[in-house]
Amino acid sequence: MKQKHILLPPDQQVKSWYNVVADLPGGLAPPLDPATGQPMGPDKMGAIFPMGLLEQEMSQQRWIDIPREILEIWQIWRPSPLIRATFLEEALGTKAKIYYKYEGVSPSGSHKTNSAVAQAYYNKQEGVKRLATETGAGQWGCALSFAAHKFGLDCKVYMVRVSYDQKPYRKVMMNTYGAEIVASPSPDTPTGREVLAKTPDTPGSLGIAISEALEDTVSRDDTKYALGSVLNHVCLHQTVIGLEAKQQLALVGDYPDVVIGCCGGGSNFAGLAAPFVPDKLEGKNIRLLGVEPASCPTLTKGSFAYDFGDLSQRTPLLYMYTLGHDFIPPGIHAGGLRYHGMAPVISALMREKLMEATALQQLECFEAGTLFARTEGIIPAPESCHAVRAAIIEATREPDKPQTILFNLSGHGLLDLASYEKYFAGELVNYEMPDEAIAEATKNLPKL
Amino acid sequence: MKQKHILLPPDQQVKSWYNVVADLPGGLAPPLDPATGQPMGPDKMGAIFPMGLLEQEMSQQRWIDIPREILEIWQIWRPSPLIRATFLEEALGTKAKIYYKYEGVSPSGSHKTNSAVAQAYYNKQEGVKRLATETGAGQWGCALSFAAHKFGLDCKVYMVRVSYDQKPYRKVMMNTYGAEIVASPSPDTPTGREVLAKTPDTPGSLGIAISEALEDTVSRDDTKYALGSVLNHVCLHQTVIGLEAKQQLALVGDYPDVVIGCCGGGSNFAGLAAPFVPDKLEGKNIRLLGVEPASCPTLTKGSFAYDFGDLSQRTPLLYMYTLGHDFIPPGIHAGGLRYHGMAPVISALMREKLMEATALQQLECFEAGTLFARTEGIIPAPESCHAVRAAIIEATREPDKPQTILFNLSGHGLLDLASYEKYFAGELVNYEMPDEAIAEATKNLPKL
Repeated sequence: MKQKHILLPPDQQVKSWYNVVADLPGGLAPPLDPATGQPMGPDKMGAIFPMGLLEQEMSQQRWIDIPREILEIWQIWRPSPLIRATFLEEALGTKAKIYYKYEGVSPSGSHKTNSAVAQAYYNKQEGVKRLATETGAGQWGCALSFAAHKFGLDCKVYMVRVSYDQKPYRKVMMNTYGAEIVASPSPDTPTGREVLAKTPDTPGSLGIAISEALEDTVSRDDTKYALGSVLNHVCLHQTVIGLEAKQQLALVGDYPDVVIGCCGGGSNFAGLAAPFVPDKLEGKNIRLLGVEPASCPTLTKGSFAYDFGDLSQRTPLLYMYTLGHDFIPPGIHAGGLRYHGMAPVISALMREKLMEATALQQLECFEAGTLFARTEGIIPAPESCHAVRAAIIEATREPDKPQTILFNLSGHGLLDLASYEKYFAGELVNYEMPDEAIAEATKNLPKL
Repeated sequence: MKQKHILLPPDQQVKSWYNVVADLPGGLAPPLDPATGQPMGPDKMGAIFPMGLLEQEMSQQRWIDIPREILEIWQIWRPSPLIRATFLEEALGTKAKIYYKYEGVSPSGSHKTNSAVAQAYYNKQEGVKRLATETGAGQWGCALSFAAHKFGLDCKVYMVRVSYDQKPYRKVMMNTYGAEIVASPSPDTPTGREVLAKTPDTPGSLGIAISEALEDTVSRDDTKYALGSVLNHVCLHQTVIGLEAKQQLALVGDYPDVVIGCCGGGSNFAGLAAPFVPDKLEGKNIRLLGVEPASCPTLTKGSFAYDFGDLSQRTPLLYMYTLGHDFIPPGIHAGGLRYHGMAPVISALMREKLMEATALQQLECFEAGTLFARTEGIIPAPESCHAVRAAIIEATREPDKPQTILFNLSGHGLLDLASYEKYFAGELVNYEMPDEAIAEATKNLPKL
């Protein structure tokens, strides 16, 4: 009987994060203040983030200790399992070994909880009483609601209205963890009131929700802001995924030929792939493959430039692959991948050819997710279906080639079953993203 | 740092089921043919169950080997984790150690998958092509849909209409696993058509759905019937839960003072508790505590008698605690606990005072589930909330008493969040079950 689960004994728990910035050959360009075009120091960002996280955001240190309080809460679901997809391998008739790191075991059902706990901890350390954030599909909002409660922090989540209405269970989950949720645009902030006055029936957007969470933050002394992806410190927190996976593979004497993760803001891919970068720099023959939706092809068709992280131009300028901060992707059901930009660390890895990227269509990803569910049992989140599809493509391109594939199953799809229902009913479509549309969207990149 | 997860190494996988029937001091009374009042042999039941399962149903053998094919599929989620509820302990301020065995890690999210895989296997072995079943809340339907597909069997699920409408995600989950689902009553069977003609707006009932699944089964040569609880073979399959838990506790040098599980049909409690019965018979000081809803108090207020397993009197007569086969419990949200009877093996343990039972109200159980979610992260299924509540009661009665509590967290509540929403909105109520109502319901027990 082939061993399916590779368990990491508790005494081999990962105790430090790996900061890939320390190993980027070209270093990382700093965020810029849009008002001055100059690098933005931690002083100015201190109004919205605690210093502990800003230090990590700027850090050049290779290894950063994980505080005991974070490790204790992580114990609820970490080390997460590394599972060999034996039944998927059989169904595909491949000689490839396919492993997946399963992050859906966390309380909120995705990898987001890793960083949520860390962010809540550093805020608590500095006396913050309350966190404000936005959420689109809801995974981040659920993760932060849980983590905030664990540290006795209040939490307010601005949830994009269309998701708020379409995914009522996400809202209940956040309530269960004691958080306050409001549909965005809301009557609780100046931006929310303004948008509602103009367009009372708006479905909302992540751009509006970010603005609301930031306005909430700066309007109160007791509140800081938390972001679920993109930033260096978020990617750093997620490296526990790849560090555990490396140890687990070593336990069975294996090492990946290719490492795969889906890319929205970039944190789950960075978390799995970054710990393999040093090996690649030392000449190891390993491919790191990011998977994005064809409807939002940031890495495969975007520009590498300084751009805002949000539609409303309230963030610092980040040096990254971007489709333009006013690019609105089609409404695919992998809501977590509908982001115009990409984490600066991922963008740097791409720029330096330390990773590669591919863009996949919605229907082939749901097809892959369904095959995965029927063979391996777990129903993947629509975002994670992209990684599943890419793993299948790799395993079947040369089915007789013995190779080892590792991918991140970043979350389960139990709160996304309405999307599967639409897929089965034939109501989902693919989206082409013509080059002209991308050229149009990237026309408005900020001039420096 | 206290160890939270107790992992069972793969080489310590449980390889045999424990059949508590072999150790029941008074033995187990056989099922009776309602037409003759005589014991019903496997020959007559062979029309609806495969012989492999009927042999287990009648078996007196203490240990029964688990076939390799079942162990292979179980590897997807087994051994399931045993987790110490350190954060709940802290919140309660108790010196008790609280451990929970977490069965929500299975693909369909509950312990039901253990028996579903076994049942699909034995049906496949005997050339069955298709399974028919009913489901109320949906956990069993999802589990069987998954298991049937793993063995290449078609599966048709008759789902009680009110659940079908209230829990649309359950239906999608079954579709994802390739099963055919129909709301019951359906136009597909004589009983369904009859009920629909008389009462087109009926919410349906488990009694009607069982009738439909049985009619479906006997109308075709390629189909057998599958049941998710109550029967001996189902309880047998679930003993993997308690066998693993014993080994896991032994790894940390612990042993429970009290073992707790919620009781609907009885299979999850039997699965956890039965393996501790031999120790109790040998004089070990251990309590086995079944928890039922106050609105359906089978063990605490029911009669011990021969009764039908279903409303429509199509099953053999089972010797068990019962509230009467025409007892309709109030609509509490722990749908899996709304059963008038109790597994004959559980009933025998109760009768012989090898276990005890308690009945809890709905609101205190949701309150406990919410506290559990906020401390331990996992949102429990409404059924499992009953076990959580009972564990809390045990741990806080004498908070300074060092004791070890083990309970079964039989499933997660991610597809039951609508029930939590109603709880938070103050829309749920408790139900008293007056003795007169029970006397009335048990008036119609079959005369032998």
